[in-house]
Amino acid sequence: MTKVVAVDVHDVRFPTSLGLHGSDAMNPDPDYSAAYVVLRTSDGPEGHGFAFTIGRGNEVQCAAIRALAPALVGRDVEAICGDFGSVYHELVYDSQFRWLGPEKGIMHMAIGAVVNAVWDLAAKRAGKPVWKLLADMTPDEIVGLVDWRYLSDALTPDEALDLLKKAEPGRADRERRLRAEGLAAYTTTPGWLGYDDATAERLAREAVAQGFRQIKLKVGHNLDDDRRRLAVARKAVGPEIRIAVDANQCWDVADAVSWVGQLREFDPWWVEEPTSPDDVLGHRAIRDGIAPIKVATGEHAQNRVVVKQLLQAGAIDILQLDAARVGGVNENVAILLLAAKFGVPVCPHAGGVGLCEMVRHLAMFDEVAVAGHTPDRVVEFADHLHEYFVDPAVIRNGAYVAPDVPGFSAQMRPEALERFRFPDGPAWSGS
Amino acid sequence: MTKVVAVDVHDVRFPTSLGLHGSDAMNPDPDYSAAYVVLRTSDGPEGHGFAFTIGRGNEVQCAAIRALAPALVGRDVEAICGDFGSVYHELVYDSQFRWLGPEKGIMHMAIGAVVNAVWDLAAKRAGKPVWKLLADMTPDEIVGLVDWRYLSDALTPDEALDLLKKAEPGRADRERRLRAEGLAAYTTTPGWLGYDDATAERLAREAVAQGFRQIKLKVGHNLDDDRRRLAVARKAVGPEIRIAVDANQCWDVADAVSWVGQLREFDPWWVEEPTSPDDVLGHRAIRDGIAPIKVATGEHAQNRVVVKQLLQAGAIDILQLDAARVGGVNENVAILLLAAKFGVPVCPHAGGVGLCEMVRHLAMFDEVAVAGHTPDRVVEFADHLHEYFVDPAVIRNGAYVAPDVPGFSAQMRPEALERFRFPDGPAWSGS
Repeated sequence: MTKVVAVDVHDVRFPTSLGLHGSDAMNPDPDYSAAYVVLRTSDGPEGHGFAFTIGRGNEVQCAAIRALAPALVGRDVEAICGDFGSVYHELVYDSQFRWLGPEKGIMHMAIGAVVNAVWDLAAKRAGKPVWKLLADMTPDEIVGLVDWRYLSDALTPDEALDLLKKAEPGRADRERRLRAEGLAAYTTTPGWLGYDDATAERLAREAVAQGFRQIKLKVGHNLDDDRRRLAVARKAVGPEIRIAVDANQCWDVADAVSWVGQLREFDPWWVEEPTSPDDVLGHRAIRDGIAPIKVATGEHAQNRVVVKQLLQAGAIDILQLDAARVGGVNENVAILLLAAKFGVPVCPHAGGVGLCEMVRHLAMFDEVAVAGHTPDRVVEFADHLHEYFVDPAVIRNGAYVAPDVPGFSAQMRPEALERFRFPDGPAWSGS
Repeated sequence: MTKVVAVDVHDVRFPTSLGLHGSDAMNPDPDYSAAYVVLRTSDGPEGHGFAFTIGRGNEVQCAAIRALAPALVGRDVEAICGDFGSVYHELVYDSQFRWLGPEKGIMHMAIGAVVNAVWDLAAKRAGKPVWKLLADMTPDEIVGLVDWRYLSDALTPDEALDLLKKAEPGRADRERRLRAEGLAAYTTTPGWLGYDDATAERLAREAVAQGFRQIKLKVGHNLDDDRRRLAVARKAVGPEIRIAVDANQCWDVADAVSWVGQLREFDPWWVEEPTSPDDVLGHRAIRDGIAPIKVATGEHAQNRVVVKQLLQAGAIDILQLDAARVGGVNENVAILLLAAKFGVPVCPHAGGVGLCEMVRHLAMFDEVAVAGHTPDRVVEFADHLHEYFVDPAVIRNGAYVAPDVPGFSAQMRPEALERFRFPDGPAWSGS
C-alpha cells in the first residue's frame, strides 16, 4: 500500500518588492510568497500545492498547513486519490479547525493548499493534467466533488447535473479547439502602479504585439495619475484592445461610482475589486452606478457562499476565481458550476507566484466541460516567476497553451525552494 | 518613557470536550481555548487580550499573534494608549498581513487580540474599566476610533456623531441605572446538545430561579430530539420566559425555514445562526420565511462589512457581536454604531472562555452611550471557566453586574495559564 509518509512545508518568498512588480493601490510592496506543501509518499509521485501570500505572515500560513498534517500522514494514497471529495470534506468539517474561519482566511487557504496537493498527486498518478482529469469525469462524478451545504437556494445538485449533461456532447470539440488555439489570456504586465509612463507604454505595445487582446491597469491611488496612465495606454493599444482597470478594494461605494465615471472616456472594459471583497451589496450598487462598464471581483472571495451571493444579487459581470484562496479544486468546481448557472463568465485571477500555472487548469475544465466556449472568458497572465516552476505557464498568440504534463503544475523547481527559502535561503540571507 | 518590552503569547486550552459543555450541531466536542497575549511593559500595568478558539489550530492562532509582535515591541506605551485608533489602523493596513484575510479569519482575530490587549492596558493606566473608559469619551473621540472605509453607504461619520450626541444627555441616568440594576443576561447553560433531558430540565428551572428571563437551547441535529427538548424546556420555564434556539450554522435556507416551522408551537424567541455566517441574503430569506420568529447572528460575522450588509439587507432582528472575532474594541465600536443606526438591538455572544468577561464592557458602553436602554438587549451568559479570571463576570438576579476593576477583564490567573498550557501544562500532560 502506498502511503503519505510526510507533509513537508516550505516558507518560500521572492523579493519582488524591490522591482515594484505587483504594486497597486492597496499593496505597495508585495513580496510574492508561497506556503508550499509537499505530500511525500512511500512510492511513486509526490503531491505539491501552496497558498499564495505577499510576504509577512507567510510563516503563519505555513503553520496552518502544518496543523493539517496529522490528518494526512499515514493515509492510503489510493484511497484519498480515489475519492476526490474526501480530504476536502474531512478538513472543512473538522469542527475545531472550522472555528478559525469558518471557511475563510488562513485556515481555509491552508485547506486549499493541501486539497490542491492531493489533486496534483492524483493527477500525476492518473498520468493527466488536472484540467483533463476533471474534463474526463462524468457529470455525476463532478457533482460528487462539491460540498453542497449552503448552496441549495441558488443551485441544487440536480441542476448542476443537468448543466453538465447539456455540456457533455460538446466536450470533444471544445477539447480539440483548446488544444489547437489555447485559451485567451490578458496581461497585467503593463499595468502596475509603480511603473513610469514610458515603461507602461512600452509594455502595452509589446502586449498587443504578442497577441493579447486585453490588458489591465491598476488604478485608485490618484485620479489624475489614473487618467494620464489610461490615456497613455489607450493611445498605445488603440480602440480595439480591451483595457480593464483594477482598484484592489480601495473605494467606498460612492467613491467607486464617481472615480470610474471620470475614467469613462478611456472606455474601460471592467472595473476589478472596486471595494471590499466581502461587500456583495456594495458591488451591486457600484454595478448599477457604472453600467455599462462591467464589475469584476472574486480573487479574494473567501468561499462559495460569497460567490453564491455575488451571483444571486446580480453584483458582478465577471467572476474572478483564484486557485489558491478557497478550499482547493473541489470548492472551485462549485464556483464554476454556480457561475455557469447564472451565466456569468469566469475570468480567473492569476499572477503572483504559481497562480497562472494552476488556474489555467480550472479555466480549461470550465471551457471543455462546464460553461463551454465563450469569447468573454479571458484568463489573467502576469509574466513573473514562471522560471521557477517545473511545468510553467506557456502563452502563444495571447493564449494559454493547454498543458500536457501530469499534475496541477504547482511544483516548483528544487533550486527555487532552496534559493528563496525564508529567512535563511541565499536570496534572503545574502549568502 | 514606558515601553512595550515584550509580547508574550500563551497557548491555553481547557479540556471542556470531556463534559460535553459547549456541544452543538456543528461543534460536537470543543476544547475551549485562548491564544492569549500579554503586552509586557517597562513600567506599570501589562495589557492582556486573547483570541478564542475551540482547540486544534490554537497554535496557529498563537503564531499569528506572534507575527504581529514586531509592530508592538519597543513602542511608547503613552503614545499607543493615547491614540486608540492607531494600533488597530496600523495592523489592519499592513498590506502584507492584509492579504491573509483581508480582515477575516486567523489574522484578523490576531489583530483583535492585540488591539484588545492595548485597550486593557490603556484602561488600566486610566484606572477605569473599558466600558467606563468608552462611555466617558466624547462623541468625536468615539467616532475617531472607527475605520470608516467601506461603511459610508450605510453610515457616515457625521451620522454617527449625531447619533452619539443625541445619546449624550441620557448617559448619566443610564449609568446610574446600570450600576444599580446591571444589564439583563440570558443563559445558555441548560441548552447544550450533549445534556440529557433531566439535566436540561433541572438547569432550565434553576435558570429561572436565578432570575434569568431568557434561556437558549441548541438545535439542528435531530428534529424529533429538538421538539422533545423544547417541550421539556417550555414546560420547565412556563410561557413567560423567552426561549431562544441556536442552530450553529447547520442549515440551508429552505431547511431552516421548514425546521423552524416545526418548532413554532414552542414559541421560540429567536433562531440563532440558522445558516452560514457569510450568507447575508440567506439570512434575509430565512427571516422572511419564519417571521415573526426573530433571526439572530453575528458571533462569526468576520468584520464590519458583513455586519453592515446584514443590517442593510434587513437580514436580522438581533445582532450578536463577539468581543474576540473582529478587530478588537475599535471594530466593535463601528458595529455598535451601525446597529444603532439601523435600530437593531445588540445581544452579544459570550460563553467559551473569557467572552462573558470582555463582552459585558461592550454591551454596557452600548447601553450608556450608543443605543441607550432597551429591554431587548440581553447579553449571553454561560457558566463555565470564570474561576480562571482575575475579574470574572458576576451575575445578580439574571443581570451582569457592572465591573469596576480597571481594564478589559481579559486577564487570566497565572495558575490557569500554567495549568492549561498546551501541550505541556499539568492539565494536558497528566503530570
